[in-house]
Amino acid sequence: MAIKFAKRMDKLKGSEIRELLKLTEKPEVISFAGGLPAPELFPVEEMKKISTLVLEEAGTAALQYSTTEGFQPLREHIADRMNSKNKTNVNKDDILITNGSQQGLDFAGKVFLDEGDVVLCESPSYLGALNAFKAYSPKFIEIPTDKNGMIMEELEKVLATTDRVKMIYVIPDFQNPTGRTWPLERRKKFMEIIEKYEIPVVEDNPYGELRFEGENLPSLKSMDKKGLIIFLGSFSKIFCPGYRIGWTCASHEILQKFIFVKQGADLQASTISQREVSKFMDIYDLDAHVEKLKEVYSRRRDLMLKTMKEELPEGLEYTHPEGGLFTWVELPGDLNSKVIMEDCVKNNVAYVPGGSFFPNGGKENCFRLNYSTATDDQIVEGIKRLGVVLRKHMEVETTEA
Amino acid sequence: MAIKFAKRMDKLKGSEIRELLKLTEKPEVISFAGGLPAPELFPVEEMKKISTLVLEEAGTAALQYSTTEGFQPLREHIADRMNSKNKTNVNKDDILITNGSQQGLDFAGKVFLDEGDVVLCESPSYLGALNAFKAYSPKFIEIPTDKNGMIMEELEKVLATTDRVKMIYVIPDFQNPTGRTWPLERRKKFMEIIEKYEIPVVEDNPYGELRFEGENLPSLKSMDKKGLIIFLGSFSKIFCPGYRIGWTCASHEILQKFIFVKQGADLQASTISQREVSKFMDIYDLDAHVEKLKEVYSRRRDLMLKTMKEELPEGLEYTHPEGGLFTWVELPGDLNSKVIMEDCVKNNVAYVPGGSFFPNGGKENCFRLNYSTATDDQIVEGIKRLGVVLRKHMEVETTEA
Repeated sequence: MAIKFAKRMDKLKGSEIRELLKLTEKPEVISFAGGLPAPELFPVEEMKKISTLVLEEAGTAALQYSTTEGFQPLREHIADRMNSKNKTNVNKDDILITNGSQQGLDFAGKVFLDEGDVVLCESPSYLGALNAFKAYSPKFIEIPTDKNGMIMEELEKVLATTDRVKMIYVIPDFQNPTGRTWPLERRKKFMEIIEKYEIPVVEDNPYGELRFEGENLPSLKSMDKKGLIIFLGSFSKIFCPGYRIGWTCASHEILQKFIFVKQGADLQASTISQREVSKFMDIYDLDAHVEKLKEVYSRRRDLMLKTMKEELPEGLEYTHPEGGLFTWVELPGDLNSKVIMEDCVKNNVAYVPGGSFFPNGGKENCFRLNYSTATDDQIVEGIKRLGVVLRKHMEVETTEA
Repeated sequence: MAIKFAKRMDKLKGSEIRELLKLTEKPEVISFAGGLPAPELFPVEEMKKISTLVLEEAGTAALQYSTTEGFQPLREHIADRMNSKNKTNVNKDDILITNGSQQGLDFAGKVFLDEGDVVLCESPSYLGALNAFKAYSPKFIEIPTDKNGMIMEELEKVLATTDRVKMIYVIPDFQNPTGRTWPLERRKKFMEIIEKYEIPVVEDNPYGELRFEGENLPSLKSMDKKGLIIFLGSFSKIFCPGYRIGWTCASHEILQKFIFVKQGADLQASTISQREVSKFMDIYDLDAHVEKLKEVYSRRRDLMLKTMKEELPEGLEYTHPEGGLFTWVELPGDLNSKVIMEDCVKNNVAYVPGGSFFPNGGKENCFRLNYSTATDDQIVEGIKRLGVVLRKHMEVETTEA
């Protein structure tokens, strides 16, 4: 028997990367492959108090169905926080609560994409977003990037010559996978271009608050005069991912579509999770919590970059992220990070090979390192192991050349 | 400016029903329109203990990302429960945790449906499922029903003469909206037919455990020899909906597709919600809780049916559900329940007009009543008010005829 699936399922096969990463789950492997927040900083004691308090105060309402849009006080907290951190001017009615920002990515695909429509994204871009969009069978065009993110001349060239561009997907702050941030001038230029072409833009911003150095930059949403920017936010990286609470902030016309889609997709986010996150923001200081995260992550970033300088061979390049969770390594020539990864796993260290961050493929000499989860000792020892493996492969390369 | 949305969004407009139901939210309206479980039965005190206990025992793991498939002990609980209640023979690896069973409906659409594919469903069928599927632009063919559910001769006729049938959607136990249940013989005949045509079937079973009278019947899943049945279950009606925890149980090949789709849609269900529901099942007696629900709901059903007999005019018909949350009323002739609803709202009583439960429209002389949420006094007073309105409209009808 052959069950007939939808055509889209041909593109949603299990990735070889996911299989490879399963090998890294052995306890002896020091893995820089994940993107997890550091669990030792989760507010476990506070959440014990909160969970009791929510049930005491709200009673059965905390366990019942509620509205698709989300818990109103939480949406108010989010609007206030965006206005303060992302320099926007929004209110609760501009906010829909989603299951993490990942769900906002899926909804963007569902709301905007017909089969064969074109999505523009940074090259490379976040794998999880590309996979979410793939369910709606678009074509991807990758816009080249440099150390300051998307290159605006390239974007304009593509927009001027391409039909059916329905959506642009970008991560201007501490991008996944590169850790790069767009400077202010580039943001302004971007807004100028997309307002000319009137293309909706998904601004994915899970890491924006995790800035270790340099100046906070205004979000694209804060410069959005035409209601084109769909801002995706999340509590996963500034609080805890286990509640699966994120949000979408968009203009009325677009947000209404997202709300219809949410209704059909799963009715609403967890009532009790929403109330717990909201109550945490009522009685604790989320800013202070984020400060603690930044302290720890920035120290880990420093240690990783310092150890990379000492232990990795010459001839490769990597980014210096001003915040977020990742640095991005580019290897010389034809070195294939997927091949090298097999050696890494044997030497008990792991990263994510870079190829899968390019929706159209073709670039394998790069990989992503995460510095938020490992301890100091693991960072030093893991980068040393990585150095040994890379040195071996890069010497072979040099000898062969 | 005109933002270009995907074509599917044309079909996902806000329903007029939803607008109408907003009018019923005034406190003076006795509404039988909802489908909510009775909140006074939610285990608030137990969940206070559980939420503290989960954080004490699991610590940060309760707040971190976890696997897409779901929390293993919860999947084990669910498999055990299905084997006991639904007479299946499944294990944890056959189970994916979703955000309520609604998410399983969305995923079924995503996994099986290309634009123009055909979905077969009972006539009438659950509005929320039809809306979830509509996002994938199928055609619906409604299979006629009688008091024992789907008529199998009609199903076979349609299957024999229709191309591109990709999926069948059914609710064999205490159907929403009719409250009807398929007898054993009809289930057997159904399995014979779909095994001949090898069409995947979504068996939606949110109410199956809420049987007040008669004999428990085996689920379609328990008779599934060819791996065609996708069983959707939920804690919303037997526990609380606020956690948004449901599940999909399917054969390996199909479940793998659902897991890929879950990964792209929102990564995973809430870690902490899954652990809390699982812990409740560890230390409390969910069966005893369900017994309490059945007691209350069955008493309310009895009271509603008795009051309907006393207060509603002659000449209409309604179902006698053996379980679940709903009864279904059919009015004589051309009476339009949407028109009558406007009068009901003026008289401070509400139901869901039946038209929207028919995906292809064309039948308006019917409506759905819910008996799980209202108190005894509200049931008596609400049905009295309904009787007054219906009598008025039916007398006009008779006079005109």
